[in-house]
Amino acid sequence: MLVGRNIRLNVLAQTLWKRLLVLLAYSALFVFVVPHVTLSVAIPSMLGTALSILLGFRTNSSYARWWEARKVWGGMVNDSRTFGRQVVSIVDAADAVKRELVHRQIAFAYVLRSQLRGLDPLDGLDALLSNAEVEALRTQKSVPNAMLLTQARRLREVHATDSVLFLPLDETLTSFTDHMGKCERIKNTVFPTQYAFLVRQIIWLFTLLLPPALAPNLGWITLIVAPVVCLIFTAIEILGDAMQDPFDNKPADTPMTALSRTIEINLRQQLGETNLPPKLSPVDGVLM
Amino acid sequence: MLVGRNIRLNVLAQTLWKRLLVLLAYSALFVFVVPHVTLSVAIPSMLGTALSILLGFRTNSSYARWWEARKVWGGMVNDSRTFGRQVVSIVDAADAVKRELVHRQIAFAYVLRSQLRGLDPLDGLDALLSNAEVEALRTQKSVPNAMLLTQARRLREVHATDSVLFLPLDETLTSFTDHMGKCERIKNTVFPTQYAFLVRQIIWLFTLLLPPALAPNLGWITLIVAPVVCLIFTAIEILGDAMQDPFDNKPADTPMTALSRTIEINLRQQLGETNLPPKLSPVDGVLM
Amino acid sequence: MLVGRNIRLNVLAQTLWKRLLVLLAYSALFVFVVPHVTLSVAIPSMLGTALSILLGFRTNSSYARWWEARKVWGGMVNDSRTFGRQVVSIVDAADAVKRELVHRQIAFAYVLRSQLRGLDPLDGLDALLSNAEVEALRTQKSVPNAMLLTQARRLREVHATDSVLFLPLDETLTSFTDHMGKCERIKNTVFPTQYAFLVRQIIWLFTLLLPPALAPNLGWITLIVAPVVCLIFTAIEILGDAMQDPFDNKPADTPMTALSRTIEINLRQQLGETNLPPKLSPVDGVLM
Amino acid sequence: MLVGRNIRLNVLAQTLWKRLLVLLAYSALFVFVVPHVTLSVAIPSMLGTALSILLGFRTNSSYARWWEARKVWGGMVNDSRTFGRQVVSIVDAADAVKRELVHRQIAFAYVLRSQLRGLDPLDGLDALLSNAEVEALRTQKSVPNAMLLTQARRLREVHATDSVLFLPLDETLTSFTDHMGKCERIKNTVFPTQYAFLVRQIIWLFTLLLPPALAPNLGWITLIVAPVVCLIFTAIEILGDAMQDPFDNKPADTPMTALSRTIEINLRQQLGETNLPPKLSPVDGVLM
Amino acid sequence: MLVGRNIRLNVLAQTLWKRLLVLLAYSALFVFVVPHVTLSVAIPSMLGTALSILLGFRTNSSYARWWEARKVWGGMVNDSRTFGRQVVSIVDAADAVKRELVHRQIAFAYVLRSQLRGLDPLDGLDALLSNAEVEALRTQKSVPNAMLLTQARRLREVHATDSVLFLPLDETLTSFTDHMGKCERIKNTVFPTQYAFLVRQIIWLFTLLLPPALAPNLGWITLIVAPVVCLIFTAIEILGDAMQDPFDNKPADTPMTALSRTIEINLRQQLGETNLPPKLSPVDGVLM
Repeated sequence: MLVGRNIRLNVLAQTLWKRLLVLLAYSALFVFVVPHVTLSVAIPSMLGTALSILLGFRTNSSYARWWEARKVWGGMVNDSRTFGRQVVSIVDAADAVKRELVHRQIAFAYVLRSQLRGLDPLDGLDALLSNAEVEALRTQKSVPNAMLLTQARRLREVHATDSVLFLPLDETLTSFTDHMGKCERIKNTVFPTQYAFLVRQIIWLFTLLLPPALAPNLGWITLIVAPVVCLIFTAIEILGDAMQDPFDNKPADTPMTALSRTIEINLRQQLGETNLPPKLSPVDGVLM
Repeated sequence: MLVGRNIRLNVLAQTLWKRLLVLLAYSALFVFVVPHVTLSVAIPSMLGTALSILLGFRTNSSYARWWEARKVWGGMVNDSRTFGRQVVSIVDAADAVKRELVHRQIAFAYVLRSQLRGLDPLDGLDALLSNAEVEALRTQKSVPNAMLLTQARRLREVHATDSVLFLPLDETLTSFTDHMGKCERIKNTVFPTQYAFLVRQIIWLFTLLLPPALAPNLGWITLIVAPVVCLIFTAIEILGDAMQDPFDNKPADTPMTALSRTIEINLRQQLGETNLPPKLSPVDGVLM
Repeated sequence: MLVGRNIRLNVLAQTLWKRLLVLLAYSALFVFVVPHVTLSVAIPSMLGTALSILLGFRTNSSYARWWEARKVWGGMVNDSRTFGRQVVSIVDAADAVKRELVHRQIAFAYVLRSQLRGLDPLDGLDALLSNAEVEALRTQKSVPNAMLLTQARRLREVHATDSVLFLPLDETLTSFTDHMGKCERIKNTVFPTQYAFLVRQIIWLFTLLLPPALAPNLGWITLIVAPVVCLIFTAIEILGDAMQDPFDNKPADTPMTALSRTIEINLRQQLGETNLPPKLSPVDGVLM
Repeated sequence: MLVGRNIRLNVLAQTLWKRLLVLLAYSALFVFVVPHVTLSVAIPSMLGTALSILLGFRTNSSYARWWEARKVWGGMVNDSRTFGRQVVSIVDAADAVKRELVHRQIAFAYVLRSQLRGLDPLDGLDALLSNAEVEALRTQKSVPNAMLLTQARRLREVHATDSVLFLPLDETLTSFTDHMGKCERIKNTVFPTQYAFLVRQIIWLFTLLLPPALAPNLGWITLIVAPVVCLIFTAIEILGDAMQDPFDNKPADTPMTALSRTIEINLRQQLGETNLPPKLSPVDGVLM
Repeated sequence: MLVGRNIRLNVLAQTLWKRLLVLLAYSALFVFVVPHVTLSVAIPSMLGTALSILLGFRTNSSYARWWEARKVWGGMVNDSRTFGRQVVSIVDAADAVKRELVHRQIAFAYVLRSQLRGLDPLDGLDALLSNAEVEALRTQKSVPNAMLLTQARRLREVHATDSVLFLPLDETLTSFTDHMGKCERIKNTVFPTQYAFLVRQIIWLFTLLLPPALAPNLGWITLIVAPVVCLIFTAIEILGDAMQDPFDNKPADTPMTALSRTIEINLRQQLGETNLPPKLSPVDGVLM
């Protein structure tokens, strides 16, 4: 997640550098080389209707995906705290069993994060899971799903007789199943590629038509205005593109590592542990 | 589901090929044959207001249908995993009974998929259901509904005495009933045909008015600009149309077979089975 | 529900026939009689802003009402199937009692349908309810509400001792209460009449201003363009109007009879009955 | 709630009468007194972008508040019927106790209505609550909240031993707490005043700029067009303003008295009472 | 929360004072110094499309964040009342224990408020929590989370045997965990900074282009119109910015102190306490 209140112009400039040069050259063509080729300003503005429908739709949909991803991980934090509270207050077992259950829950968050980002899900879990359990999980196609089954089995063993108090724990596990599945849905369902394709074509067409439309009226100012207007639409498209995939190990990602760390701190403290890891801070304005 | 990041221009071109030729001829008419027939550019742009209302509405509604369909099947995956976890951890029965329950659940996903796509729902279930059960299901008007009743009956037999633990299982079955019904709602409720009709008429009118409006100002460039602008609006309409029916056995479908396979892999592994089928991959950029 | 993919032009034409004639005459006035009265095209297009705000708002709200109505009845189908499944698998009673409960549930759907459409709710229930029960219901102000109370009472008698298994049944009855109330909310809450009024006035004003604005530039083509543009806005308004009241016994209605029939088929088959009524098909492209 | 399908022009006219006169005089100034002061039509239309963003936002938000208010009271009706059904079918007590519980629930709806409208909440409850209870409630800061506590206490006394059947009743009481709190949220949270302020300023500016922009082209027709266009935007603003506060004892209010009466009729009939009050009808097109 | 129906012009003026002066000087430049530099009005209006997409998106998203924040705190009020009702009616313990539980719940609201606003969460809780408990909470990374764990432990001690009645209490605690987490999500997830950046750049560009576009047509009136139009867009941007962070101890904040006070009054009265604190009133039109 990008957390700075302002991002520097040069970040966008880096991405758009080459396009800017091509646009300048193309605009110069109509200002200095073929100034007699003109076009009514009404033509490119007619494309505006199509662009405003599609860019508005794309921006709203991408933001909805990004915000849903953040909501799902907010649910991960909430339900992890609920799970910790329930294990400590409800589960009628030795402290070692409670610690095992809560540590596995912390590991679940880290594992889900790694899997969504395409990293090794079983990396760095030594402090939370036994080596034997990590090895057993290596054979699993879906590691987080297998971990939830282990949690259910362990809880069932403990609550072999008191089935009423098993109900809220089973419900919390179901929430984790839902969160996991929602993340996979957002990760695996690409935003309809046809729309992204169409938007890029219209911007490209718009870019072609704008300089000859502006040159007769503006002269050399076209060299400033045309590239800037085109860049603005390109920037809106790029921003939508960056936000639509919030689990791709990119700066605009949902800060899953930071949230997993929050889960770890909160749940360890619920167990009464005092040797807590520090909260994560943004690095270069990016929180992962 | 189309998964490629870019789709080739020629896919759209194939669909729109004939329209393109007619548009070129019609535009040429006003450029070369009757150049004295002119029209204020304000006229076609006045249709833009109506088009932006209707196309925006249509695009958003179609996307909402497509995304809801994907969410419902995401719920199918989540609740199938929950069902598997509950059967393994809660149900107090022999392993054979648990396997029967979980296999029937896997079959339920495949059956729902086939029925929504208009295929034989009972095809290819040999590995999951007994022949007798398949034959019995042939008399059913709604096969998936009958399967859920069988699940409930079997679970009730097992939990004849412990009614508390029957509650979360009954709740999960209710979720499946809801998912099934939501799919049928999306499948059977056509997007209001009146709007689709009106949008097509406005685009047609727009296409008629654009060439005479552009020809006096643009000359032969009209041959490029007019067809392209008309095609853009047509493309937006076609994309909305393709996305609004996500259960029609078309490339833009919800990838129900792939999701059912994910369910099969996850649930079989929850049972401890090791002979797992492979994940499905996209074929020609399409995941079914 | 209108189910045809295309509706014929003449349906819209029938509704708009008289308006079309008046518009033609009015346009002809400015083309042939007082051609010297002219108006800047900018004037009617200035009304476009107000129209696009209001028509967009109206179209979206009407569609939301129509879609919510369909969702509520989808919920009716889902929860009826759930009720059938629960009665068959949970309720510990003689088959006759189960049949009575399930038949009353089927009748509930038909009754709710009739009441929403302003028909006699107790008509045609002979096969599902006893004559005595139908007569007793005649004194009720809200027949569906009274039927749910009967269901609760009967279920309570059966589950006099096992209160745990009464819980999911009571929950399902609560869902029916919610569905019934949501239908009544949509039925009884008219879309704010002030907006409908304002939209019609703006279209009327737009219609007055368009011909004098177009006549100087277009000449006799005004006779085609002006009526068509006005009709498009009128059509959008009429379509919104038709969709906003989905329980009015009109072609755009939620297909409540067809959905009730689906409920009847599914629930009868859950009971093991074999003499099933046929599914309803659209008549003249309309499914009721 | 305004229920007439058409509202008369003079209702809007009454509200806007003075503005209309001022607008006429101001327009006449530019037509007859200083016709040489002109302005490009592009200037006021530039304000259209800002207006369409803000008025669209305002209209949608106000409608969402109004519709949510209606939904919450729809929930009041549904959960009251559910409560009545549960008391009659579940609660194991004498008829007098059941009647007391259900009558208190009816009173709860009337009390919440009166409090939201700023009326005396304890007025006119003689037929539903004992005098002693009404007097005791006079000391309460939140009368409806106190009534729900009484309901919970009475239900707990009755279900002192069977705690399972207390669960659905407690859940229904929680729904009433939620409905009450949602109403208070809508009532107490004013729509951001900054936006209302800004919209009014832009309309005011628009009104100042329109007559000098129209006068050179339209002449005396400016006297008709300018006031009408300004009135349309003012009307949209006023309609949004009227709808955003649905609990203010105004004609656009949620019809809380009528819905409370529906609750009274339905719940009394669930108790088997026959002396039912009549349904409320709209008075002068307004249902309160 | 700003509660005045009108806010004074000078509040906006104060914020925008310096910009206004610069804009005036810049406009004067094109009116008096370089009147021969002109620009087609079509150029700045072309930026309108981009602005309307982005400002509309930004206004809607900011409002959605602000409204969600208010809804979450509405949920805090509702569930606190539910908790109070449940403790009084369900919990089978001495009055002192009930008082302790309810007072801790009141403190929870104040603590969450202080933590979200960056104040000392444990300040001013003497009347609600024992000194020992406050000191113990000082070591906690998340004070509200620790308080919920204490509530769960105390409730579990009381309900050591009757696990059925512990279920609704545990559910209410889970709601508080969710409310807390939702507040943290809104607080910690900045609105995508890239969009805020882009909007400000476009407004800046718009401001640069408007005066030379208006000067040739308007003359000295440009000095009024150009700054006002630019200020309107700036104001929309600023209003969105103010509303997007509702937990920042600013005037547009969710009125968390006032809502916590409401919780305190309601819950103390549920306990039967009579020495109640007064309701909070707005100070200078601002309710905190």
